[in-house]
Amino acid sequence: MILAAIKKKILIVVMDGLGDRGCKEFDGLTPLQATDTPNLDWFTKNGIAGTCDTVAPGIRPGSDTSHLSILGYDPLKVYTGRGPFEAAGIGLIGKTGDVAFRCNFSTCDDKMTILDRRAGRINIPDTTELIGSLQGMKVDGIEVIIKESTEHRAALILRGPGLNPNVTDVDAHDSGPFKWSVGKVPEADFTASVLNKFVKESYERLKDHPVNKRRVSEGLLPANIIMPRGAGEFPNILPFPEKYNTTAACVAGVGMIRGICGVCGLDVIELPSCCTGGCSSDFVAKAKVVMETLEKYDFVLMNAKAPDVCGHDMDPRKKSEIIKRLDQMAGYFKENFREDMVIVFTADHSTPCSLGDHSGDPVPITMYTPGNVRDDAEVFSESGCAHGRVGRIRGKCIVPICMDLADRVEKFGA
Amino acid sequence: MILAAIKKKILIVVMDGLGDRGCKEFDGLTPLQATDTPNLDWFTKNGIAGTCDTVAPGIRPGSDTSHLSILGYDPLKVYTGRGPFEAAGIGLIGKTGDVAFRCNFSTCDDKMTILDRRAGRINIPDTTELIGSLQGMKVDGIEVIIKESTEHRAALILRGPGLNPNVTDVDAHDSGPFKWSVGKVPEADFTASVLNKFVKESYERLKDHPVNKRRVSEGLLPANIIMPRGAGEFPNILPFPEKYNTTAACVAGVGMIRGICGVCGLDVIELPSCCTGGCSSDFVAKAKVVMETLEKYDFVLMNAKAPDVCGHDMDPRKKSEIIKRLDQMAGYFKENFREDMVIVFTADHSTPCSLGDHSGDPVPITMYTPGNVRDDAEVFSESGCAHGRVGRIRGKCIVPICMDLADRVEKFGA
Repeated sequence: MILAAIKKKILIVVMDGLGDRGCKEFDGLTPLQATDTPNLDWFTKNGIAGTCDTVAPGIRPGSDTSHLSILGYDPLKVYTGRGPFEAAGIGLIGKTGDVAFRCNFSTCDDKMTILDRRAGRINIPDTTELIGSLQGMKVDGIEVIIKESTEHRAALILRGPGLNPNVTDVDAHDSGPFKWSVGKVPEADFTASVLNKFVKESYERLKDHPVNKRRVSEGLLPANIIMPRGAGEFPNILPFPEKYNTTAACVAGVGMIRGICGVCGLDVIELPSCCTGGCSSDFVAKAKVVMETLEKYDFVLMNAKAPDVCGHDMDPRKKSEIIKRLDQMAGYFKENFREDMVIVFTADHSTPCSLGDHSGDPVPITMYTPGNVRDDAEVFSESGCAHGRVGRIRGKCIVPICMDLADRVEKFGA
Repeated sequence: MILAAIKKKILIVVMDGLGDRGCKEFDGLTPLQATDTPNLDWFTKNGIAGTCDTVAPGIRPGSDTSHLSILGYDPLKVYTGRGPFEAAGIGLIGKTGDVAFRCNFSTCDDKMTILDRRAGRINIPDTTELIGSLQGMKVDGIEVIIKESTEHRAALILRGPGLNPNVTDVDAHDSGPFKWSVGKVPEADFTASVLNKFVKESYERLKDHPVNKRRVSEGLLPANIIMPRGAGEFPNILPFPEKYNTTAACVAGVGMIRGICGVCGLDVIELPSCCTGGCSSDFVAKAKVVMETLEKYDFVLMNAKAPDVCGHDMDPRKKSEIIKRLDQMAGYFKENFREDMVIVFTADHSTPCSLGDHSGDPVPITMYTPGNVRDDAEVFSESGCAHGRVGRIRGKCIVPICMDLADRVEKFGA
């Protein structure tokens, strides 16, 4: 151990989808290049900077795979599909060996033909009441756990011996004839059979449910069947606190990020209602929660979703407005900075406004702690950070580098 | 083969522990940033530069693991613990399959309770005389080879069939009751038993040794038992000259570095007494030895330990003085430069003065040979080198890059 040093705390601020490409609206600059960010620049001037491929060069990461990387895991090894991570995102954190699915509440007729994959975009509280009638089910010895999510969405976990995630979706991905699940390998036939039996049973239990009778009487579509897709086994992930010998928490409004962090063993902090996980979110209020959380934990990951939303909406001016507000948040961190702290500002991926979706462009990264080496990067942007000494790193290097800056690493050798 | 080119010679100058973090004494600059280094800057201006994680981002390397990396080996694969490398450091270079240990001469009473782990910091020549009585021993068919090091330290090699390095230390790491070795796996029980028998026999042979009788009569603690720890198998390392088809030598004052280089098959050059391996070392005299060695060898690794010593001593002003003298050494290399030569200036790791120990901060690297690409780095420092085209590389890439700059590499493909 290093005797002279205190182990510092670590904060990673992920500004979701922050990276961009040149925008016509800004004469070819990115929203970040075109926006004045004095506080983020202060951290860049006084810290070390670089660019980061959260997964690998040229890979277009999802927010799930990129956050796994940023937490130090290799998504190419541990990312087992959307099912388990969406389930985790609504609090259904399974065990290794469980097989998880994303589901839709859908509408079918009595010949099992799908009339609407989203059951007229049914929502809570109807879904909550309907799901009650599906709980505690066992199919051929397999336990069924199901939970409603937003709108017509739900997540399903199958738990028990002999399961295999290599099954096709129970979802035609369109209206029309029903498509039953089949095993993609013989070892998965049992799982497909269990899944199909569950789907049939969901129809039996839901078709005459009082909620659906009421919906029909109101001219709404009944949600009379569950359609699961995106099968994935819950991965065997060494919990973050064990992997890095730290306490760890996540401050995020978005279910998927909360789910990823939960699967990785981080405590998920509850947020006040002003932290919406969208563009209306109060970033400074969230930053206050982060600093309170840092009192109790060694490591905190914070996610702010808003820039990603603007990228998907292809709205560079709105993204620039959000960036100004994120810089005010950075100002809060600067004013309330703890000397025993390493802070990182980065993004999980780029969401170029010209594309309306994620791209593989590397994202800017700045790391600051009192007494770090000062480098020659001065501006927090896709180009400005490239002048720094961090160079071009992978997302999975972020936590190891922070752990070293925080003087939390054992020496390898003598 | 490349017809147009002569194969050049390669010199890697490792300035041990050179990298640092911001120091209060230098207004937040590192000692290297704060010190004028015209000669190192000349090589940086005219060569190519970058930063280097000698092992991997965020890993705090020892001098042993980092030198293995710099020589092109993967320490995660070949580093088998401190025993073999410390043994090699005092010239005990074993064979694959040998199990090596670090040892202390210690003091125990007749109930085998440890009174002093360091036998009153006994030293040469007493240890040399004592060790003579332990030579030529065989325990259950296993050959015992032992050699004294500095002060109370020694190294031990066990050689013979059926050995396994997975044994616990014969060392309570404190005064008090004796702790015998046990196998961590059943296959290592035999090794633990041999080790324990050797330790008992060391007591029998040392307790009434004339040196110890004299020490007791002088009021000094007797060194009446050997305590081995840090078991490791000698790794199977493809010798450097064979791996790279070059002749290779090392010019270093410090035992551990000489040991690492010896294990990797480099010839270890003897140094005049003015090259102390410490802060008092005459770097220019050492540089002369290096240039002479380059007459006879294709590849030379030079190590200068002094900046690391200043880092451990938490003395940035002294580190700055050492850096000035290392720059004079660089001046000697500039004046005596061979046109058929690639020279590299780098460090094995950072030893920040604020920390007093190694850190995982990447180190600066500059490579120069006449006719290389010139890049935009101008200053040899942690930040200055980051402007160069070398980017952020791993230590294990240094030798392959040098071999290419020296036109010594076969083409891969057509």
